[in-house]
Amino acid sequence: MHFAVKDNIDAAGLPTTAACAAFAYSPQAHATVVQKLLDAGASLAGKTNLDQFACGLNGTRSPWGAVPNAFDPAYVSGGSSSGSAHVVAKGQVDFALGTDTAGSGRVPAGLNNIVGLKPSKGLISARGVVPAAQSVDCVSIFARSVGLAAQVLAAARGYDPADPYSRTLTLADRPFPKTFRFGVPDALAFFGDRLAEAEFERARAGLRELGGVEVRFAYQPFAEAAALLYESALVAERYAAIRDFFDAHEAAVMEPVRGIIAQGRSYDAADLCIAQTRLRALGQQAAAQWREAGGQGMDVMLVPTAPTHYTIAQMQADPVALNRNLGAYTNFVNLLDYAALSVPSSIRPDGLPFGITLIGPCGSDWQLAELGQRYHHATGLTQGATGEPLPAPVPIPGIRSSSEAPSTVRVAVVG
Amino acid sequence: MHFAVKDNIDAAGLPTTAACAAFAYSPQAHATVVQKLLDAGASLAGKTNLDQFACGLNGTRSPWGAVPNAFDPAYVSGGSSSGSAHVVAKGQVDFALGTDTAGSGRVPAGLNNIVGLKPSKGLISARGVVPAAQSVDCVSIFARSVGLAAQVLAAARGYDPADPYSRTLTLADRPFPKTFRFGVPDALAFFGDRLAEAEFERARAGLRELGGVEVRFAYQPFAEAAALLYESALVAERYAAIRDFFDAHEAAVMEPVRGIIAQGRSYDAADLCIAQTRLRALGQQAAAQWREAGGQGMDVMLVPTAPTHYTIAQMQADPVALNRNLGAYTNFVNLLDYAALSVPSSIRPDGLPFGITLIGPCGSDWQLAELGQRYHHATGLTQGATGEPLPAPVPIPGIRSSSEAPSTVRVAVVG
Repeated sequence: MHFAVKDNIDAAGLPTTAACAAFAYSPQAHATVVQKLLDAGASLAGKTNLDQFACGLNGTRSPWGAVPNAFDPAYVSGGSSSGSAHVVAKGQVDFALGTDTAGSGRVPAGLNNIVGLKPSKGLISARGVVPAAQSVDCVSIFARSVGLAAQVLAAARGYDPADPYSRTLTLADRPFPKTFRFGVPDALAFFGDRLAEAEFERARAGLRELGGVEVRFAYQPFAEAAALLYESALVAERYAAIRDFFDAHEAAVMEPVRGIIAQGRSYDAADLCIAQTRLRALGQQAAAQWREAGGQGMDVMLVPTAPTHYTIAQMQADPVALNRNLGAYTNFVNLLDYAALSVPSSIRPDGLPFGITLIGPCGSDWQLAELGQRYHHATGLTQGATGEPLPAPVPIPGIRSSSEAPSTVRVAVVG
Repeated sequence: MHFAVKDNIDAAGLPTTAACAAFAYSPQAHATVVQKLLDAGASLAGKTNLDQFACGLNGTRSPWGAVPNAFDPAYVSGGSSSGSAHVVAKGQVDFALGTDTAGSGRVPAGLNNIVGLKPSKGLISARGVVPAAQSVDCVSIFARSVGLAAQVLAAARGYDPADPYSRTLTLADRPFPKTFRFGVPDALAFFGDRLAEAEFERARAGLRELGGVEVRFAYQPFAEAAALLYESALVAERYAAIRDFFDAHEAAVMEPVRGIIAQGRSYDAADLCIAQTRLRALGQQAAAQWREAGGQGMDVMLVPTAPTHYTIAQMQADPVALNRNLGAYTNFVNLLDYAALSVPSSIRPDGLPFGITLIGPCGSDWQLAELGQRYHHATGLTQGATGEPLPAPVPIPGIRSSSEAPSTVRVAVVG
């Protein structure tokens, strides 16, 4: 197994640049997650390009050039884990590590016909990873099949006291119910992309064919939470992450990354308290949707991974607004402590990929993988941009198979 | 049952002042917790004095005068829930509500020979409570017996989507092990108070007599976390809580409360991100102590509730430093997401009370009450300052009694 790592993750012997030459340093040790994968027998193939400081969802924000889409080089790869998604889609490695703060591990998966697994927060150690917004950063996994992504997660996960945000989590070990309830936002924006809109209709039908019952949920609290990430004091966490460097070398940071990070300076600590409390209030509204959507709530949420595709030229002409559009269905996930899995869904008539994201509560990682693998295999798609057929489905590591006896059973004791 | 509520908690028909006349408002509705207690049949006796804006641990910081200690009026009552503790100690009400951000529900309990129950964060709704530091504020309960405090908790608790920080928590329903391991800090400060030091020795012996095995743990990460509350950007949450009022009426806030809240203005949002990450790193170090202290870790932590007593005159002469001393064993608890129970331990030779605090992980509320009740009854103390004997112990609401059959049992399935 060969893997690549996004260049904001330490691999001893290679510089960590975060796509900023002035920031580069030579780590003495591997990041915890890299060490775990090497220990499990994987081989490191190299580092991959990214949107500078993992700030962006489009793949054009790098001094080393825009990463092209694996299906059409005129189009963006998505980001910020642009290079990691590209090398997986092209079949150059078996899997790759990205990072995901606002969608960086999902958007490029959706745009390149590969799987992007965004684990529950704190499940994979971020020690040795350049922080973007540290309290919500997640190391993420790209692969061409859900099964392999899940196997990588099984090897990569683990509590790490050296990561302030690492957690000991108990993951659900049973699949979603056979007639699972999936939620679809009551307000969907595709920014004029009729092809994406049609593919999402097909995706909903595909989930129903797997036994899903579709319910509508109010997207407003999720969208409001998403907006806080850049339009409130929460953005200050990006400045805090590299504050000393940024204050000393601001001119070495490229636009629009520089401007976004600099916004973090304009808020005071009380602004951040107020924004964090607002986020918690929106989290309560969001929780009500999980409990109550369609009357009985939802087990899993279905969204387009990205609402549309943009060419590199379009993105460079309007880099902030179009980047924001790409995050229409990703920004809220880490803020609200959910797990997510981007799965290939179809190839559009124009030859570009369309991906969906399954979102579940914290700890639903294996459940998402179990459903996501079934969905992926039902699509009839080939792997990434390789044209190769999907490998056979595999048991998802953390899910007990239905034939397997439970290790404990619940026994009612009467009287 | 008659109860009183601290005057930063809304009771419709009475002004909420937070001990600041300029801030006072007339709430249209009861706070959620007050409504729940009224619905359960309790009668509201009135509102109680407090350290202004719940900022303080001593009970002297009120425009309406210092609340005296129930055992000797020359001494401070402790705070900030000073009046609530006083009326309970004096037997004027059956129980009272306080709030606890840094120890305000424990210190006055310890200084007045009553029980102070500081629940797990988010267990009791804080809707209708004037925030102090909203992400760590807890409504707390004072009573003269652990059993009553636990019964009040059972009536008061409940998820409330209208409180951004409310949580759905599963509480442990089994007592601590029979030979529970209790941790004692490796560094204890009593600020020269030999009487308190001797009483704490007795308290340790008392817990051993109940079956406890004493282990030492490193207090440093807990003390460092405690220091962050006022000596880092975390203090900005106090300013954020009343920002609009404070900016408009700063002169109406009394010293030293004014100065403490004003400190919150001096930090920017990135400072707060850095302080919050530091707190999480200390939380990981603290978790290691829970897992590893004495080789096998600890089930519960034992600390003095307060390290000493001060007279009102002493406190007024040195209001910041002596107040800080009173919080030597309380400040870290909410920040690190623990539950705590202050229990009367002894009356010192000088006639002043000495209290201990049992601290457990989030969700240990019933376990703390089960152990705390046994401890309290073993002391032979009387109720508060009333001289009345303790009522008979009661079953703790959330704890299944050992004779009770479990509703489910674990059965190993082999092969």
